[in-house]
Amino acid sequence: MIKVGIVGATGYTGVELLRLLANHPQVSLDCVTSRSEAGTMVSSLFPNLRGHVDQEFTAPDVDRLASCDVVFFATPHCVAMAMVPELIKRGTRIIDLSADYRLRNATQWQQWYNMPHTSPELLSEAVYGLPEVNREVIRDAQLIAVPGCYPTATQLGFLPLLEQGLIDPNHLIADTKSGVSGAGRKAAIGALLAESSENMTAYAVSGHRHLPEITQGLNDVSNLPVNLTFVPHLTPMIRGIHATLYGQLTQHAGDLQTVFEQRYADEPFVDVLPAGSHPSTRTVRGTNVCRIAVHQPQQSNTVVVLSVIDNLVKGASGQAIQNMNLMFNFPETTAINTIAALP
Amino acid sequence: MIKVGIVGATGYTGVELLRLLANHPQVSLDCVTSRSEAGTMVSSLFPNLRGHVDQEFTAPDVDRLASCDVVFFATPHCVAMAMVPELIKRGTRIIDLSADYRLRNATQWQQWYNMPHTSPELLSEAVYGLPEVNREVIRDAQLIAVPGCYPTATQLGFLPLLEQGLIDPNHLIADTKSGVSGAGRKAAIGALLAESSENMTAYAVSGHRHLPEITQGLNDVSNLPVNLTFVPHLTPMIRGIHATLYGQLTQHAGDLQTVFEQRYADEPFVDVLPAGSHPSTRTVRGTNVCRIAVHQPQQSNTVVVLSVIDNLVKGASGQAIQNMNLMFNFPETTAINTIAALP
Amino acid sequence: MIKVGIVGATGYTGVELLRLLANHPQVSLDCVTSRSEAGTMVSSLFPNLRGHVDQEFTAPDVDRLASCDVVFFATPHCVAMAMVPELIKRGTRIIDLSADYRLRNATQWQQWYNMPHTSPELLSEAVYGLPEVNREVIRDAQLIAVPGCYPTATQLGFLPLLEQGLIDPNHLIADTKSGVSGAGRKAAIGALLAESSENMTAYAVSGHRHLPEITQGLNDVSNLPVNLTFVPHLTPMIRGIHATLYGQLTQHAGDLQTVFEQRYADEPFVDVLPAGSHPSTRTVRGTNVCRIAVHQPQQSNTVVVLSVIDNLVKGASGQAIQNMNLMFNFPETTAINTIAALP
Amino acid sequence: MIKVGIVGATGYTGVELLRLLANHPQVSLDCVTSRSEAGTMVSSLFPNLRGHVDQEFTAPDVDRLASCDVVFFATPHCVAMAMVPELIKRGTRIIDLSADYRLRNATQWQQWYNMPHTSPELLSEAVYGLPEVNREVIRDAQLIAVPGCYPTATQLGFLPLLEQGLIDPNHLIADTKSGVSGAGRKAAIGALLAESSENMTAYAVSGHRHLPEITQGLNDVSNLPVNLTFVPHLTPMIRGIHATLYGQLTQHAGDLQTVFEQRYADEPFVDVLPAGSHPSTRTVRGTNVCRIAVHQPQQSNTVVVLSVIDNLVKGASGQAIQNMNLMFNFPETTAINTIAALP
Repeated sequence: MIKVGIVGATGYTGVELLRLLANHPQVSLDCVTSRSEAGTMVSSLFPNLRGHVDQEFTAPDVDRLASCDVVFFATPHCVAMAMVPELIKRGTRIIDLSADYRLRNATQWQQWYNMPHTSPELLSEAVYGLPEVNREVIRDAQLIAVPGCYPTATQLGFLPLLEQGLIDPNHLIADTKSGVSGAGRKAAIGALLAESSENMTAYAVSGHRHLPEITQGLNDVSNLPVNLTFVPHLTPMIRGIHATLYGQLTQHAGDLQTVFEQRYADEPFVDVLPAGSHPSTRTVRGTNVCRIAVHQPQQSNTVVVLSVIDNLVKGASGQAIQNMNLMFNFPETTAINTIAALP
Repeated sequence: MIKVGIVGATGYTGVELLRLLANHPQVSLDCVTSRSEAGTMVSSLFPNLRGHVDQEFTAPDVDRLASCDVVFFATPHCVAMAMVPELIKRGTRIIDLSADYRLRNATQWQQWYNMPHTSPELLSEAVYGLPEVNREVIRDAQLIAVPGCYPTATQLGFLPLLEQGLIDPNHLIADTKSGVSGAGRKAAIGALLAESSENMTAYAVSGHRHLPEITQGLNDVSNLPVNLTFVPHLTPMIRGIHATLYGQLTQHAGDLQTVFEQRYADEPFVDVLPAGSHPSTRTVRGTNVCRIAVHQPQQSNTVVVLSVIDNLVKGASGQAIQNMNLMFNFPETTAINTIAALP
Repeated sequence: MIKVGIVGATGYTGVELLRLLANHPQVSLDCVTSRSEAGTMVSSLFPNLRGHVDQEFTAPDVDRLASCDVVFFATPHCVAMAMVPELIKRGTRIIDLSADYRLRNATQWQQWYNMPHTSPELLSEAVYGLPEVNREVIRDAQLIAVPGCYPTATQLGFLPLLEQGLIDPNHLIADTKSGVSGAGRKAAIGALLAESSENMTAYAVSGHRHLPEITQGLNDVSNLPVNLTFVPHLTPMIRGIHATLYGQLTQHAGDLQTVFEQRYADEPFVDVLPAGSHPSTRTVRGTNVCRIAVHQPQQSNTVVVLSVIDNLVKGASGQAIQNMNLMFNFPETTAINTIAALP
Repeated sequence: MIKVGIVGATGYTGVELLRLLANHPQVSLDCVTSRSEAGTMVSSLFPNLRGHVDQEFTAPDVDRLASCDVVFFATPHCVAMAMVPELIKRGTRIIDLSADYRLRNATQWQQWYNMPHTSPELLSEAVYGLPEVNREVIRDAQLIAVPGCYPTATQLGFLPLLEQGLIDPNHLIADTKSGVSGAGRKAAIGALLAESSENMTAYAVSGHRHLPEITQGLNDVSNLPVNLTFVPHLTPMIRGIHATLYGQLTQHAGDLQTVFEQRYADEPFVDVLPAGSHPSTRTVRGTNVCRIAVHQPQQSNTVVVLSVIDNLVKGASGQAIQNMNLMFNFPETTAINTIAALP
């Protein structure tokens, strides 16, 4: 049994952490913090948790957090980096769902987030929490940067091809579609149902903050520098990411299906579909699974990878718990082996 | 460990049974039948079950079904009543999610379903599987008729008031709203997204098949005959029923909130919200919970009850498993104590 | 050709006014005001208007507004009443889409809007702009209070029955369902797609501001005081109101269908459907039509009226233009005789 | 005034033709045919047309159709080609919204539609009805093949770049997203709201029938053979297509924005957005407009074009009327100059 704290649990990744951790047999939830909601019952803000989470939000308190075995940050960027150094010093393990420790380069971070990083010394220590790449390092990490939602779906789709040098790193395209919960639980006109339902639109084509994160991850496995065109779209649904990935084959393609199946044969949360399949986001809703299919239309040299996740689970809170399970030697699938409700 | 069979698992209540039973530690799934899909992998039709249900659909076989401890019928009406008598004879216990055994009166059944009932002798033996009313009888039942979705939400909302004689049974109104999954997994133009999205409409105002079922259940607890106006509506969402119930108080209202809280104090799946609340269907999505609030606007003599369920869980498959748990002395909440994913 | 001004055109009723007026052959749009967006192109905020409205938002200017033949207020409550008295003095005609002049009783207004009314002297002068009731008075009015969305759908449904004394005014129930655009174009967490999609919920059961407005209108045609239970619901769609209305017949019902058909025989924007029909909101989307059906289920003494409108057209901007057409002797249907796009 | 017939008006392109033609001052609707619905009032099947279209469906009759000035086919493929040759012989002009005359090569047609073409002699005579390419030829055409929805959005996006030789024709990618009305008004499980809402999925990645149509059109303007990877997706909305197009610049890019603005400067229905914009499908809903934006992210050599249309208007019925306007010398925008209702 470990003692867990959650900082900033009033957003969507927070409530999703609470939903999943409520069924974790090894977790004792010590504190759920929120400055703005301190004193409110968690289940009053999130009535789905009535009968499952019987706690109040409390103001964040460093001593109490430091007494936890692990603290999750489910906060907007810049919050974690203000508290993490102190907690790290006191030996608490950290799983940060925000973007604060995802980029290893402080200058690059500043360029994309428009402010200086306040604990750059921790950037090299932080482990990028993608178990399919970093499983062993994660086990011993003190500070985990949980990957973003687009980066998870995109990297899992490109990795088998890049690792084997099968595609040209210089011409990658990721056309990605996300449900609106990716924008977080904050009042914004563009995310109103009246604005985003019955509508499809691209956004941030000139540059999205997940681009450097994806590029960093892909560069790690590529022998040549990666050049990625990344176009995110807003889709009229609550949850789900569909990444449609395009690469140019550099050689006669062998059996791409086998490449993917072998790469993920032992992965509990990556499901390579049979050849010719089209994964749909609803089959992973509420689950930690990434479903992938690979196609080579008209046998041209363009390979198409379809990769779907739930942005709030494998793209955030579920992956965070997967990291925690690894860090504390729990079975990796504990509490996150859920099945999507269909329809 | 009990052996379970499911007849007709290609519909929405079928896949929901499979999702929930996959996590039931006391259940061994023996067979999943479908005439049309025999030979197909269940997880090929329902990819959400990949990695969780590793079985093929088989053609229904009476001997195999009879060897099960319990058989669920997740079929359209008229299918169960063709097979149930034989299975009953051979000692198999039956949980029928269809309408075949819900009405005790065969003449009335024929009138609403436009064909004669073929096993009327079992109607009196069948137990109406609403645990909040019939828990003790359910434990020993051989044949359970699982309540319909509208009837579950409506009866749970009216019961406390009728049992106490607080409202006039002669003037009940149930204005109910359902997601389109209530129409089942069958190709129908009216249920297309292009037809039913961005749309709200009433239907079957002149008479819906759930009306006699609700009336029968309410009459059982009322000292005077019930007269119910029942208006169902189609709502542009997948899951969820919202029943808005209106009654005329027959006497000075005491504390209606207490009436509801006391009635359901020991019910694991009925959650009476604090006074002044408005339950929303998304808080019960994927769960077996009925959330209820009671209001008396402007202190007039009209009482308003708001009652929400997931039509496929508490309104069908979850309630079916709740019945099974009672019948086999498993803890009542086993496998159905899930939490809604929000948002 | 008349000169038109619009105050506060950055909301949903504003953009809808602009869409409809752009096709009005007798209207010259003089100014579109918005304090916050002054200097912005209207078509930059609302790209659907590109090529149709070639104007900037301007800061509201009394002199310029006073020079218009008619000024629409598409503002939150309390804005119109600050400017209208001056404009009235200067002879400008006013069509107020907000709630400021809908209630005739200033005390009641204060009670529901939590602040004193600042131009109570105009309340008796204002004409309630429901053409189906007040057509002749509207023609000569200087100040129109455009009815709210729920009040329009509800009154049009109850009027034929109350006017004929066919139902008991003491036991009226309006169970109403609205799309989320009714909440306006303002950032609010509850109206996010992630919160309000795949969800159904009642709200404001204890008292909604449209209740006194509806009651006032119904009292005007009833010989006995009206007692209405009004329960609004939020429905996961953008546009549309579905009002389901319940009344108790006071006498042997004659042919209710004929009552409705005769009442609305000459109304260009009320469409009584054939007996047995169920109107759906999508058939009135983007149009000024109210579609109505009347039912008497099981021949009991409860009558059920189904009434649907588009909350932003017949429930706001379309009705405002219908009033304008009457005031300036244009054909009543000019610019608002649109057809719903289906699907 | 011309006499118009519509064959097969029970589908979505049919009802959309009826909606738009109802407002066309030069059109007299002679007959609306449907074998299955003969005798039914059109407005009974499509209640949005009540008060606007007062006609019955009739069984298709060649003599009556031949007496029309123009006949629209809003039918599944293979229906038009059975009747068109006879009508052509009798001098009737034809606007075919189906796929029957879109491909010039009968062998290719047979390969994609799995049956022989029965009037291949007309393929060379048919004019591809994309006014932005073929305006002058359309004026005199007797037989128009209205482009498909994906082909319209995709070609309009690629044309300016290909015509100028700015991108490599050998590496084109079209990642397209469509609302479900694109699947037509036919009962199919995959298009149910319960299946396609809250879901995103690609389909037909191995080969979609619109691929050869797009390739044919692009080859017409390209000096080198076009190689296109075309991946369509199903999006949980009713209407709208969002095409995200990728090309590799062959030379130092000049001002791409100007290229697009100049190409479409005189086009009434193509709206090039300001640099940096992201068109959204809702701004073209119900309209004949194609909105386009061009981007060059990170100044790499990958150009991204965003192109949106309403699949049922510019992607079908609106474009069909645009063709008719050209053929009969009506102002090109008559009856199709509508404004999207927003929200």
